[in-house]
Amino acid sequence: MKIGFIGLGAMGGAMARNLIKAGHDVTVWNRSPGKAEALAAEGATLADSPAQAAAGEVVHTMLADDKAVEAVTFGAGGILSGSAIHVSHSTISPALAEKLVAAHRDHGSVLVSAPVFGRPMAAEAAQLFVAAAGPAEAIETCRPLFAALGQKVFEIGDHPPAANLVKLCGNFLILSAVEGMAEAMTLAEKGGVERAKLLEVLTGSLFGSPIYQTYGDIIVREGFRPAGFTAPLGLKDMNLVSQAATDARVPMPLLAVLRDHLLSTIAREGEDIDWSGIARIVAADAGL
Amino acid sequence: MKIGFIGLGAMGGAMARNLIKAGHDVTVWNRSPGKAEALAAEGATLADSPAQAAAGEVVHTMLADDKAVEAVTFGAGGILSGSAIHVSHSTISPALAEKLVAAHRDHGSVLVSAPVFGRPMAAEAAQLFVAAAGPAEAIETCRPLFAALGQKVFEIGDHPPAANLVKLCGNFLILSAVEGMAEAMTLAEKGGVERAKLLEVLTGSLFGSPIYQTYGDIIVREGFRPAGFTAPLGLKDMNLVSQAATDARVPMPLLAVLRDHLLSTIAREGEDIDWSGIARIVAADAGL
Amino acid sequence: MKIGFIGLGAMGGAMARNLIKAGHDVTVWNRSPGKAEALAAEGATLADSPAQAAAGEVVHTMLADDKAVEAVTFGAGGILSGSAIHVSHSTISPALAEKLVAAHRDHGSVLVSAPVFGRPMAAEAAQLFVAAAGPAEAIETCRPLFAALGQKVFEIGDHPPAANLVKLCGNFLILSAVEGMAEAMTLAEKGGVERAKLLEVLTGSLFGSPIYQTYGDIIVREGFRPAGFTAPLGLKDMNLVSQAATDARVPMPLLAVLRDHLLSTIAREGEDIDWSGIARIVAADAGL
Amino acid sequence: MKIGFIGLGAMGGAMARNLIKAGHDVTVWNRSPGKAEALAAEGATLADSPAQAAAGEVVHTMLADDKAVEAVTFGAGGILSGSAIHVSHSTISPALAEKLVAAHRDHGSVLVSAPVFGRPMAAEAAQLFVAAAGPAEAIETCRPLFAALGQKVFEIGDHPPAANLVKLCGNFLILSAVEGMAEAMTLAEKGGVERAKLLEVLTGSLFGSPIYQTYGDIIVREGFRPAGFTAPLGLKDMNLVSQAATDARVPMPLLAVLRDHLLSTIAREGEDIDWSGIARIVAADAGL
Repeated sequence: MKIGFIGLGAMGGAMARNLIKAGHDVTVWNRSPGKAEALAAEGATLADSPAQAAAGEVVHTMLADDKAVEAVTFGAGGILSGSAIHVSHSTISPALAEKLVAAHRDHGSVLVSAPVFGRPMAAEAAQLFVAAAGPAEAIETCRPLFAALGQKVFEIGDHPPAANLVKLCGNFLILSAVEGMAEAMTLAEKGGVERAKLLEVLTGSLFGSPIYQTYGDIIVREGFRPAGFTAPLGLKDMNLVSQAATDARVPMPLLAVLRDHLLSTIAREGEDIDWSGIARIVAADAGL
Repeated sequence: MKIGFIGLGAMGGAMARNLIKAGHDVTVWNRSPGKAEALAAEGATLADSPAQAAAGEVVHTMLADDKAVEAVTFGAGGILSGSAIHVSHSTISPALAEKLVAAHRDHGSVLVSAPVFGRPMAAEAAQLFVAAAGPAEAIETCRPLFAALGQKVFEIGDHPPAANLVKLCGNFLILSAVEGMAEAMTLAEKGGVERAKLLEVLTGSLFGSPIYQTYGDIIVREGFRPAGFTAPLGLKDMNLVSQAATDARVPMPLLAVLRDHLLSTIAREGEDIDWSGIARIVAADAGL
Repeated sequence: MKIGFIGLGAMGGAMARNLIKAGHDVTVWNRSPGKAEALAAEGATLADSPAQAAAGEVVHTMLADDKAVEAVTFGAGGILSGSAIHVSHSTISPALAEKLVAAHRDHGSVLVSAPVFGRPMAAEAAQLFVAAAGPAEAIETCRPLFAALGQKVFEIGDHPPAANLVKLCGNFLILSAVEGMAEAMTLAEKGGVERAKLLEVLTGSLFGSPIYQTYGDIIVREGFRPAGFTAPLGLKDMNLVSQAATDARVPMPLLAVLRDHLLSTIAREGEDIDWSGIARIVAADAGL
Repeated sequence: MKIGFIGLGAMGGAMARNLIKAGHDVTVWNRSPGKAEALAAEGATLADSPAQAAAGEVVHTMLADDKAVEAVTFGAGGILSGSAIHVSHSTISPALAEKLVAAHRDHGSVLVSAPVFGRPMAAEAAQLFVAAAGPAEAIETCRPLFAALGQKVFEIGDHPPAANLVKLCGNFLILSAVEGMAEAMTLAEKGGVERAKLLEVLTGSLFGSPIYQTYGDIIVREGFRPAGFTAPLGLKDMNLVSQAATDARVPMPLLAVLRDHLLSTIAREGEDIDWSGIARIVAADAGL
């Protein structure tokens, strides 16, 4: 299929590469051009603008935040100038997705929200989980593309912002699990139980899922640097959850704990720490 | 092996039954005698006192709280009058375990803390997880007994209170997962995503562990009654965690959220609701 | 002095009236013209646009939120078209104040941030407290105007956003006091102590300040309607505090409690309740 | 009047001294005898036991916690051996007060709960506030004694535990005010507003009560050592509030914040810091 890919960071780069490998004709664009050139060496065509990347049947975007998605979508040279199905993988606000739906409708194109779960390693291994929402026909078109990116697709319905909300809920739950483990491990450690021993029991009994294994291990060995997903990015996501919760009038006291711990993590540890570094704050608050 | 079992509630009764089935010679005692008689019909011997149940090689206790364990251990007719290895399955405070260790040492006997993870159905199916701590020799003696009760034994070391702390951490993490799902599902529902859809994504991707499956399902269908584990029992456990955290000077803000939601659950819904009924409070606080 | 006044709600209307009474030549503008006409009957001149109201020496604004202040400041017919000192009384974000400072500088005019403390009754009685920040000379010019509005002026320095931050801190502390009293009164009531009795002790001993008296009385008699300051306005302010705290990387767990209780208040009680209605949520969460 | 006084710490010593100055015949007892001897030099009679101190018309107790009050009340040589009215000034649990009421009734004597508000300096100056509850006749008897101790008496009714609950509510509100100021001052400081400037506005406008003045000043100058009231004592009190709230099924999220901050204060700063040292934790969590 003739497609475009915009946003070639750790996640997007790996995803674009898998689309190339799967035999698609991929045109790429990135704000800083170096990353696009690297992909050109692997078979991608270079675009001069987001619009050029949106000249095919589908254009994927995988960007850092709402602002970056707006920047490549609207205005001269933006995605809306083309007619491709816009598959938005970024973690953005449901409110922006709502706005994109309307803008695409006005331009005769279509939005599919398809945020993904997984860290860069999962992206490289084409093991992402995709949560997709949008018009059924468009999703049908994208099915082979999703297959090249991940291990499983969840269909969330025909309203794109719903998929973005699901993604935010997922990220909220990941950090909730980290907070829970961090508090429990700190209590255990001060009570004479090794963190690794507690984790062995948890993952060997009732919590044997990837999140508890992956993040539990990070907390046990304090492997917060280099970051797989930085605290400021985590804060951005939790702020999006908070905005959605405020709009919907939903009190979320656990979210509040996470937000405050991320703020403290950034204030005390800097911007380069993994978002699971909130575990360090939990320990420090107990005097460890 | 000649053993005793004290405390024949939903959990203890099922466990004693499995020990009988495994061929052990089981003497039982229960504060209210009806439950003991039922087990006698299945082959158990009836004891007149906890001491009598502690006349064999090992005596198990599975009771509601610290107070109940103290009541059967100390005083005339208490477990300490016998010489059996005391295998304590109850969820009690590490502080009481500490006290029991000393008392048993003074009486020439031994304590093994062996709290279990699993709801009554898992107890019946001999699918519990056992976290055991105590003198290595005593644990060796108990190994066939544990095998009759559960699917896996985690050895936590030779200091019994450590196993009790692990159990408290586990229960804290279970309710933390419930709180996280409750907040996320409430946000999802108010944002137009069905609870069941969100759960399908979570358990189908990163959260595929029994806790998320079991409790997620309860929250989706609001199956809070009849309770598998009541809110007041959950509160008792979270109070034990809070006491341990206070003693160790460990701030646990997520625990505080759980405790407050349990208080609200009991105040607004009554004492017969499952501890996962905190999800109802989370929804009610958002106006649902 | 020839001045303008923009924003004639409960607060602004009373303030403009006091400026007229003090002998100033006041030109007024309001988005919905009815309120301006009422003031014209008391001696005010009607303006066709914010710019006209900004044709004198000073123009006051007293509006609901950031958006409203931006709407009257920028664009054709906006305050920036005039050359008056802009005295901004509204509770706005320090970030917007920062932006206004720069915009005024570019237009050769000046911003004075002068948010006020006090409810409508205090505004009518010219008993407000004014927290003013801006260039010393401009503040000197405004001194007689402030004298007509309030009982006391606090000078916060020459950087206008500082006054806005002080105002946000003040509102945060007011609602913090409400939360504290609400929790204490709920505990007292369930423990058999009348709310009024507790309040009598508090205000008669260590908490004898207007906030505890005024809001304590509202909580005791559940006088949440009609609202002096509605929950949605309170939420808007707490969101501004949260934004400032997020930008500055300051965890504020007490703020998080307030925000969640406001969300619950609006979800469960509607939009017309006073922001101190969080006390009703605190009581309801305890089953009262 | 012939009275006794038990517990001669910073608070109790000053109170006993004021009773001597007022002309009463005071018999004193203290666990560590040195403090009692100092008062003997000022006219007090030394008792060999709490019972001897309870041989007069009234016996006051001013002790650190529930345990200390139980130790001087029950058993051989305890207050219950005498027949004096027991005026309990200590900050104890309503539950213990309940128990003392029953014990005194059984012994034909009477309990008056009369906890006091004020730090040691206020005790020396006889400027305490007394919250008294108990049988009307007994309170009438105590009136001249209260007059010698404080500036004002609040009558809470005839049920002694009610006064203890009021005292706990008061201490909770004091620390709530500290938390509020700490969060606000941290935000202000990171936003470029001096702590002292913010405090000037607060106490000069809506928060002009002793608590905000006294503790605001401590926070501004970080005067947390020497402690007027240590963090461990503050934690003891907040634990009593938490126990009462748990018993009454009252969620108190602000209390939870205070408890966690006290735990962190003790873990990170040690046991000798003032309870208002939670402000240092609030600042540290923001990276200051």
